[in-house]
Amino acid sequence: MGSVQPLDNSNVDVLIVGAGPAGLMMANWMSRCGVKTRIVDKRGTKIFNGQADGLQCRTLEIFDSFSFGHRAWIESNHMLEICLWNPDPETGVLARGDRIPDTIPGISRFQQVVLHQGRIERFFLDAIKENSVRTGCNGPAGDPSAEIKVEHGVLPTTFKFDESLAEDDEAYPITVELRHLTEEEATPPQKATSANGQGIQDGIFRSNLSVDDTMDMIRLSNTLADKAGSIETVKAKYMLGADGAHSWVRQQLGFKLEGDSTDYIWGVLDVIPITDFPDIRMRCAIHSESSGSVMVIPRENKLVRLYIQLTTTNVEGGGKKFDRSTITPETIIASAQRIMRPYKIDYHYLDWWTAYQIGQRVGNSFSWHERVFLAGDAVHTHSPKAGQGMNVSMQDAYNLGWKVANVVKGLTKRSMLKTYQSERRKIAQDLIDFDHRFSRLFSGRPAKSVIDEAGIDMKTFKDAFEKGNMFASGIAVDYGASMIVAKSGSGKDQGDGTEVLGDENLRVISDSAEKLANKLEVGKRMPSFKILNQADARPWHLQELLKSNGTWRVVVFAGNVRDPSQKKRLDTLGEKLEAADSFLKWCTPAGQKYDSVIELLSCHSAPRQETTIFDFPEVFRPWDDNDGWDYWKVHVDDQSYHEGHGQAYQNYGIDPQRGCSIILRPDQYISWIGEMDDYESMDRFFKGFMIDQRTRQGAKEVVANSKKPGNSKDMYAGTLAGTNGLRTTINGDTKAGDAAVEGTAGM
Amino acid sequence: MGSVQPLDNSNVDVLIVGAGPAGLMMANWMSRCGVKTRIVDKRGTKIFNGQADGLQCRTLEIFDSFSFGHRAWIESNHMLEICLWNPDPETGVLARGDRIPDTIPGISRFQQVVLHQGRIERFFLDAIKENSVRTGCNGPAGDPSAEIKVEHGVLPTTFKFDESLAEDDEAYPITVELRHLTEEEATPPQKATSANGQGIQDGIFRSNLSVDDTMDMIRLSNTLADKAGSIETVKAKYMLGADGAHSWVRQQLGFKLEGDSTDYIWGVLDVIPITDFPDIRMRCAIHSESSGSVMVIPRENKLVRLYIQLTTTNVEGGGKKFDRSTITPETIIASAQRIMRPYKIDYHYLDWWTAYQIGQRVGNSFSWHERVFLAGDAVHTHSPKAGQGMNVSMQDAYNLGWKVANVVKGLTKRSMLKTYQSERRKIAQDLIDFDHRFSRLFSGRPAKSVIDEAGIDMKTFKDAFEKGNMFASGIAVDYGASMIVAKSGSGKDQGDGTEVLGDENLRVISDSAEKLANKLEVGKRMPSFKILNQADARPWHLQELLKSNGTWRVVVFAGNVRDPSQKKRLDTLGEKLEAADSFLKWCTPAGQKYDSVIELLSCHSAPRQETTIFDFPEVFRPWDDNDGWDYWKVHVDDQSYHEGHGQAYQNYGIDPQRGCSIILRPDQYISWIGEMDDYESMDRFFKGFMIDQRTRQGAKEVVANSKKPGNSKDMYAGTLAGTNGLRTTINGDTKAGDAAVEGTAGM
Repeated sequence: MGSVQPLDNSNVDVLIVGAGPAGLMMANWMSRCGVKTRIVDKRGTKIFNGQADGLQCRTLEIFDSFSFGHRAWIESNHMLEICLWNPDPETGVLARGDRIPDTIPGISRFQQVVLHQGRIERFFLDAIKENSVRTGCNGPAGDPSAEIKVEHGVLPTTFKFDESLAEDDEAYPITVELRHLTEEEATPPQKATSANGQGIQDGIFRSNLSVDDTMDMIRLSNTLADKAGSIETVKAKYMLGADGAHSWVRQQLGFKLEGDSTDYIWGVLDVIPITDFPDIRMRCAIHSESSGSVMVIPRENKLVRLYIQLTTTNVEGGGKKFDRSTITPETIIASAQRIMRPYKIDYHYLDWWTAYQIGQRVGNSFSWHERVFLAGDAVHTHSPKAGQGMNVSMQDAYNLGWKVANVVKGLTKRSMLKTYQSERRKIAQDLIDFDHRFSRLFSGRPAKSVIDEAGIDMKTFKDAFEKGNMFASGIAVDYGASMIVAKSGSGKDQGDGTEVLGDENLRVISDSAEKLANKLEVGKRMPSFKILNQADARPWHLQELLKSNGTWRVVVFAGNVRDPSQKKRLDTLGEKLEAADSFLKWCTPAGQKYDSVIELLSCHSAPRQETTIFDFPEVFRPWDDNDGWDYWKVHVDDQSYHEGHGQAYQNYGIDPQRGCSIILRPDQYISWIGEMDDYESMDRFFKGFMIDQRTRQGAKEVVANSKKPGNSKDMYAGTLAGTNGLRTTINGDTKAGDAAVEGTAGM
Repeated sequence: MGSVQPLDNSNVDVLIVGAGPAGLMMANWMSRCGVKTRIVDKRGTKIFNGQADGLQCRTLEIFDSFSFGHRAWIESNHMLEICLWNPDPETGVLARGDRIPDTIPGISRFQQVVLHQGRIERFFLDAIKENSVRTGCNGPAGDPSAEIKVEHGVLPTTFKFDESLAEDDEAYPITVELRHLTEEEATPPQKATSANGQGIQDGIFRSNLSVDDTMDMIRLSNTLADKAGSIETVKAKYMLGADGAHSWVRQQLGFKLEGDSTDYIWGVLDVIPITDFPDIRMRCAIHSESSGSVMVIPRENKLVRLYIQLTTTNVEGGGKKFDRSTITPETIIASAQRIMRPYKIDYHYLDWWTAYQIGQRVGNSFSWHERVFLAGDAVHTHSPKAGQGMNVSMQDAYNLGWKVANVVKGLTKRSMLKTYQSERRKIAQDLIDFDHRFSRLFSGRPAKSVIDEAGIDMKTFKDAFEKGNMFASGIAVDYGASMIVAKSGSGKDQGDGTEVLGDENLRVISDSAEKLANKLEVGKRMPSFKILNQADARPWHLQELLKSNGTWRVVVFAGNVRDPSQKKRLDTLGEKLEAADSFLKWCTPAGQKYDSVIELLSCHSAPRQETTIFDFPEVFRPWDDNDGWDYWKVHVDDQSYHEGHGQAYQNYGIDPQRGCSIILRPDQYISWIGEMDDYESMDRFFKGFMIDQRTRQGAKEVVANSKKPGNSKDMYAGTLAGTNGLRTTINGDTKAGDAAVEGTAGM
């Protein structure tokens, strides 16, 4: 002990408390965007079995946008079908009553899967390491010291906030003391169980049936302080509390979780099942006549998770806390056996188990001066069966990360950060409403007849399940009107009430969206269909082009560019986009690459084989002195050789003659839809929240020798003429060779 | 220096000389199958730029069978279209004359891609490490010491073979002395070029324009021996020479490469092109009027490889070796500029370059006593433009690896190894014939008119390209009749002449194949279509189920199992397969898992939702005491929720009522097609080359307490009845809990 020295990394842009999925998602964004960041977690380095592990299709889309979606897709168990089992109305014997697809067909290129949370954290850790070294978060780019490392066994103990600095973009208003714990302190005690002489991990310590141990850990830490953990002070511009249901950050801010608990107690077993139940590899909802319900979630590595209603429960006094000593894997499987009769179910191998009490709570606020934010279980808790917890938590941080990164970089006004609470608190409220309805339907017994009002009608249950499926996919999320979602309405009716419209004079509304892209909705994530790269004919899902790297995107559906009048519209748009005062220029700090803040993509509808990228104005395929033309921006909606025809225009409801333009947020949500050549609305939209880099105070990134893309055409012409000179600058020490070289020498 | 000590790993099952793609493929097989192996390479650890890098779709299928296909697919550049450019017949100006798909649509679930060889070697190294530790190749399974490590800078210097031991399965007839080189010795000298002050690597040292440096390295090594590299003696059961065009192993065996060279000299540049040529991101064949040809191969990371015909060449005396000092990147790009006029082409960034002289040669033998084998460039050299070299080399070792592994494990008769030369020497001959025709078409000038007989007619060229595409995909490979390919014919007309039919009394011929599966061909690789797992409805490409792990597979297309007469046929087959004398039993060493030598898979055609795995005899979904039923063997040809209908029966030409059975080799090639219930032919087929494990001499793996699957049903019934007893054996120290547990106690 005492070997942990205070780090000197004491001023950071972002401090993240908690390294679960929400905290890791935030750190991942910061690593991708090159933001100086620390992430601490009071727990030790051990990765525990079990825990929430369903991945919605929207979560997989997000993973894919960070380039590790395939890892989850390959390793996970895919869930395709939900089987609904309940007592046969005539015989009363358990029977399969219905089947529904687990993921609604067509809503995403991914389907819901299940994977151990430890693997998901591994994907994040690998990505954070690779990204942060490459982008140079905490050190020089490319240097190992730049890595954002998760600091385990580190506990925040005091929090101070200087309100006078809250609106100073460059200030560090947050001060936190961090204590470095010992390994013992950082490892939570677990209930002793064993299988084959090996310890079985249980999740009781993280369940809401257990008491909060944070203060115990602080107290323990204090008593050991002089000889054990060291303390350091960190100042931060922004902080995220992603520290779970007992959130220390939330307690510091004095925010509350509002909601209530039920009497329903459920047990969870992760086992390799020994059974003759035929649908054990399907997701199943099993309602017994009177013994409660089981949900079956098939997992990877032959495992199956069973959520099992425990009908015999002891409720303690007023706090409704459960005496956990009466719950064991044996009592839980016995309940399952009663519920699943006449089928037999048992196990040899038990991987993990826990129990929990159903309840739904949501935080009364998610944000403190747009400087300290809460995400994940810190602001919403609910039952795990809907497979929502980890997904919504990660999506909280996914919503927040790019906003904070763009503000830290001085690209975006701080007021845009208000949209975090507006958008995500609304989602949290929707989530607990959903869970409230769903849990009660699930925990009730089936109706014995149409007049059995205390029972749950199985038709109602199926309908709820199917509707719930859309919600549970994560695809239905529809962010309300704000400075970054250009539609009518306000945060009052479409958010949590926070004012997020910004400057009314700059407000843009996509009033022709329904006409121009009648299958798209402003505020929802951009659906994905396959389009082809114009230059090499490769099919890409549109979403594959929308990598999460913090950039906004203007996607120009250019229509039929072989038609002269449409071509003229495109050329006019190109001129405006290429002009010196274009938003592509004023949003981008001098010296940075042309697509580093706003990327211009296009997709036309003319026949691919009759078109080349040279049919597009230069701004759509920009020039780089070293790399030549950019071949990766212009796309086409046409037949592929091996993967069919994506029919993107048709699927988006876009007129293939007229086209349209769409602004996408860095998180793939649709901000604005307008006429293809409506440059003025786009410019006004960006003016609402982006900072003009030409006049930005304190902008230091101006590089004297930066070359404006507008000059590139001439340069290119000169380059091609002077081939020998061009290469001489590279291979200066090689001779020109015996071949005659055309063109003039030198540049 | 001197720090490298002789390893004590001096007796190995397999010694691999050369760690290029062929050697790594062999090592990968060995790692997958748990065979004690060493792999040495005289080169140092540096990975060089450039080198062959096209990946056929068949190669990607193979990578996928080793679980790293997705890595190549994600990182590579995909080639979709070939554009044929030649002088316009009227104007004489270069113009796009035609387009063809780069990979023939429908032949594979992958398409041809391009990726740097260094990345491919990385995938192999990662897989070899993971596999060899897991399977326990060179040490205890799971222990890091079990890893097969590529030993770089290790040169074989002497070779001895004891012919008297050649036919003794357990003997080590091969003795090789290995010398450990210094870093300097192991790093080949390169031509000094530079770009931006950095050294540019060229490939001249590996080109066939350079002289063999192996003997130089041995001589150098000798002079330094006393104070430098150490020497060790290794004995091996089997050896693979995958040591390139100048193969030391081939020289030791006295085998010859037969064939000839041409006068055509080509240069290769890997550059980021600066150009206005519109198809620079397509694969292009560009024929100029009289300046020669260019082939464009777009690569990953913005790179493009240019194969450029050098019209001005100096041919040395009789040996046709080229004076390489007159070839520089400047002379090569100048040629490209002449050929591609009026388009301009140049570069800022040069990644790699080389030059080569076209020639085709094939080894007169690939095998010495079925103990020492040659693969890859050691037995076939040709021009790189067809993108075949690395693919065919890897496929040589892919063909060989599982055969050697199964022989080393005592599962298979040694005589089966004769099929390596029979199958692969035939392919090598086909390859050089193809390359011979293709290269000459490519290097010739376009015909000026129909009566210009010295020129190449562009129609002829396009036809050759299209036909070549099927060959180049690797999918067309059709292995001849042998003891492991049950069709009529012989090695004389379908192989290289080697006798490979084996015992005539055990010969099986798939004489009803055309009737039972009229779109499949015995001897070709099994095509892949999507089918669904019966238990969880997940779609899988059939090939995804055919992982390369050394096991044979019997795939029972069970037809309509809901039809009583078909169900009866299935049950009868099940009884035979489950019987104590079934080939599933006698091929499998006692104590090994039921699917470790021959895996039984099935795919039926009844509606999925009306069927469960319990409709199949137990042998199709075997029982495991710890894991319960095996849910991953029974499949169905039906509609999926999200990925359409694979129509496997229709695509294979199998009658959905009647079905058929198919035996697949461990490398996915079709061995036999017969009636679904023709157990007798299957048994006879395996008798032709498999060793009966019940009578095998020296079989030591018999485990006393192994449980026969045939007993499992009773055990299962007992297990389910005695749930408490079952769990008690696992969680012995936990109490039974307060829940009543049904059933009898104990087992």
